[in-house]
Amino acid sequence: MSVLIVGSTALDSIKTPNAENPRLLGGSASHAAVAASFFSPVKLIGVVGEDFPKKYVELYRRHKIDLSGLQILPGKTFHWSGEYEINMNNRRTLLTELGVFENFTPHLPDAHKKSQFVLLANIAPSLQHHVLDQMQRPKFVAADTMDLWLNIALNDLLKLLPRIDCFVLNDSEAHQLTKEDNVFVALKKIHKLGPKYVIIKKGSHGSILSSPKGFFICPAYPLHEVCDPTGAGDSFVGGMMGFLATAKGSVENNFRRAMIYGSVTASFCCEGFGLNRTTKIKRADIERRVKELEKLTKF
Amino acid sequence: MSVLIVGSTALDSIKTPNAENPRLLGGSASHAAVAASFFSPVKLIGVVGEDFPKKYVELYRRHKIDLSGLQILPGKTFHWSGEYEINMNNRRTLLTELGVFENFTPHLPDAHKKSQFVLLANIAPSLQHHVLDQMQRPKFVAADTMDLWLNIALNDLLKLLPRIDCFVLNDSEAHQLTKEDNVFVALKKIHKLGPKYVIIKKGSHGSILSSPKGFFICPAYPLHEVCDPTGAGDSFVGGMMGFLATAKGSVENNFRRAMIYGSVTASFCCEGFGLNRTTKIKRADIERRVKELEKLTKF
Repeated sequence: MSVLIVGSTALDSIKTPNAENPRLLGGSASHAAVAASFFSPVKLIGVVGEDFPKKYVELYRRHKIDLSGLQILPGKTFHWSGEYEINMNNRRTLLTELGVFENFTPHLPDAHKKSQFVLLANIAPSLQHHVLDQMQRPKFVAADTMDLWLNIALNDLLKLLPRIDCFVLNDSEAHQLTKEDNVFVALKKIHKLGPKYVIIKKGSHGSILSSPKGFFICPAYPLHEVCDPTGAGDSFVGGMMGFLATAKGSVENNFRRAMIYGSVTASFCCEGFGLNRTTKIKRADIERRVKELEKLTKF
Repeated sequence: MSVLIVGSTALDSIKTPNAENPRLLGGSASHAAVAASFFSPVKLIGVVGEDFPKKYVELYRRHKIDLSGLQILPGKTFHWSGEYEINMNNRRTLLTELGVFENFTPHLPDAHKKSQFVLLANIAPSLQHHVLDQMQRPKFVAADTMDLWLNIALNDLLKLLPRIDCFVLNDSEAHQLTKEDNVFVALKKIHKLGPKYVIIKKGSHGSILSSPKGFFICPAYPLHEVCDPTGAGDSFVGGMMGFLATAKGSVENNFRRAMIYGSVTASFCCEGFGLNRTTKIKRADIERRVKELEKLTKF
């Protein structure tokens, strides 16, 4: 089955202590869509400006991403510019030019409305609602978020949580939302807000799932060098949803392996700027790291 | 087989945001010895003053810890007092009274010199050397350390590393020692300093082993409440060494499970002040959590 993915489609200019890379393909939906494409067909919902480079459209196409829901509007593509500190953990935004993204209203082509697996990648909760409003009866909906929406759109986000099956956020966002330092207590509190599955991402420390089957401690793939972590969280949730959409059996039974596949896909994302590395790998590269992770965690 | 453990034997006065507990039994050797005692006989090497409460001698005895290497000298027992911040991750020392510990010279009874498994728990590297100098031919030696020794006794520590099989330190100490942010790169650098097995502890994020068999990602047992993390690292390495000393088969083959047992023993340590919780559990409680960890990490 295919995955419908809505989120930001952007140009990212990324500075790290070692390099500077202008106008890479970025945005939560781009990262999630490419990650998901290794496992299932993807339908992308987003908006770009007339300046959006053709090579990026071709990149989406090489990954067989359905672009019938990608709007190309007069104006400029969303442009984000950020800088990472030496340890790659802290980043600060240098510039945000919303461009055509400012008035983005996601429209679903009719064929998309019946999608069974929906990923509401990081984007304003009001737009996540707007996509769900157009869906007929999705089987499984996951949503990602960021600190910005907790700050400026908390009510919209809280109304979204009972409408989705899985909520994904990082540890500092979980703390911000629940005021809890303990990740396991935070998970329980977030369940009460609606979602059956809650995932807290902890960067290089992996992630924790809380589900009807209990907790799962999901490892991160060991990386000896992180080139650029931008989009790693989007790749994680994209890979996970792609895997879930095509795996045989119930979502519940496939969930842990789906997270492992997401985790491995995210590891490739960190090894290059933007999508540079992720777009060079094959499914077999992912399978190899999944097998390695199995060995690295067995006892 | 038994484990010989040398380290500090102290009285700990611990303040947390919720409570204050004066003169608990503490010190690296006390925590490690009690943890190891669930798995193998323990020989303790340490020093206390005449003020050392009888109830703590009885506590050691209940855990069948051989005290023939515990010196009782005129003067006061080492007393440490510290305070934890609200999130339990940062602690600051309020007071350190060395007492009889100031001139501690570990003497090994003859019967101890043939010990096969030796844990040099956190203590000055010169004393760790002094213990090794008295040993005949131990089969497996592990050493723990702390930031203090990296600051004031780095040369002694660097000379110790080629003499031991396993070195255990936490992530910030690994960074301090290697100047590396990446934990996997730091592990490789530390191998070059001597030890065949290197473990980097990451608190609630678990620990990472680097060994001849490659990396192992060792999870922490999920705790919903941390009462007092003092001694958790000592309990981890104590439990691990206790398990290794009695497990059938080679050290290499038993290492991962030994870390899991250490991790679980440390989880109990965190659930009470000082040794309050650890001394109330039974081996069966540890086995239960090990089984849970198996379930929590399987995919």
